[in-house]
Amino acid sequence: MPKTISVQALQRLPTYLNYLKSLPLDKDAKISARALGNALGYGEIQVRKDLSAVSDGGKPKVGYCTAELIRDIEIFLGYDDVNDAVLVGAGKLGKALMSYEGFKTYGLNIVAAFDSDLAKCGTDESGKQVFPIDKMENLCKRLKVRIGIITVPASSAQQVCDILVEGGVEAIWNFAPTHLSVPEEVVLKNENMAASLAILSKHLSEKDWNCP
Amino acid sequence: MPKTISVQALQRLPTYLNYLKSLPLDKDAKISARALGNALGYGEIQVRKDLSAVSDGGKPKVGYCTAELIRDIEIFLGYDDVNDAVLVGAGKLGKALMSYEGFKTYGLNIVAAFDSDLAKCGTDESGKQVFPIDKMENLCKRLKVRIGIITVPASSAQQVCDILVEGGVEAIWNFAPTHLSVPEEVVLKNENMAASLAILSKHLSEKDWNCP
Repeated sequence: MPKTISVQALQRLPTYLNYLKSLPLDKDAKISARALGNALGYGEIQVRKDLSAVSDGGKPKVGYCTAELIRDIEIFLGYDDVNDAVLVGAGKLGKALMSYEGFKTYGLNIVAAFDSDLAKCGTDESGKQVFPIDKMENLCKRLKVRIGIITVPASSAQQVCDILVEGGVEAIWNFAPTHLSVPEEVVLKNENMAASLAILSKHLSEKDWNCP
Repeated sequence: MPKTISVQALQRLPTYLNYLKSLPLDKDAKISARALGNALGYGEIQVRKDLSAVSDGGKPKVGYCTAELIRDIEIFLGYDDVNDAVLVGAGKLGKALMSYEGFKTYGLNIVAAFDSDLAKCGTDESGKQVFPIDKMENLCKRLKVRIGIITVPASSAQQVCDILVEGGVEAIWNFAPTHLSVPEEVVLKNENMAASLAILSKHLSEKDWNCP
């Protein structure tokens, strides 16, 4: 049975992994929770707690074996199990995601893309096929695609999402700046850049207010 | 004095705004907190609370004047005040962000980009200039740039961040999957796609575990 973990801890795991992989390769290297915390700006206790869900490897006064910890986190995050994904909306952002090599490291494989604009259909510069959107439901079912990435404008995002769910997709990664409704068994993760920008611009306008 | 608002509410404001702007244009149109909540999947009480920081316009049994509410949210988010930004790392993601027209709506204006690879310097297809990274600190100071967008690999993100802060940047939008340290007066917003993917792939691997 997989151990339970908080969403916050889960989201920190790739940061641990990324840092551990940036260290010099040495199969006997060890790292302590304190050293990890210092490098990443987390408290030592938090590091111990985060990693306890993933690894049994931390030993008092010795720390974690770096190579084992990397392996444990990768297994926990399912990076070994490649999940097939489709992307909908082959605009600028969609194309950037399609050609992003890094996703393979995370076990994400974009097998095809879809667009309502026939002019965008064909083979993309990333080498991936862009199909007309009316092929989507069938192709998702046939290829047993599990993840749908939405990079269409907000106005058509819910419609696209519904088709993906009909096609059997179990996880939606939404880049459109809008709320989406999905059935309970489908997981939805919003990547809302407008929300992030709101944080930044509010901070700047408050600074202006305080120091005119 | 600006009213205070929670980070969560602040991040929901662009979603309200986006929905309100998708409605038919009618200067006398009204919308109730309940209707807004239903459309966006939020509770009515949460909608009232979120919008109370932004607008005095909600009237019992009448609701908010849609056009006024749009205006109030835009002013609150500072979309009228254009903030100049620079982007560092003119790879695929960087290029996608550079050519994203939508940022103008949010008051974000990318004035220039930087890259350590001289082959990427010159005029980008978006029409924006990409400069060598050693020009960055001076150019940020000279143009009084307030926002720095980091789209470099994790290994060089902290170094880039330090140069931006030296150059007087007050807000960092980080797309590199790593922890960054910034001085207290600088706001940092992480856009960590690896963290989002961790949520999705964990969900899928748990489903596999439960239904073999």
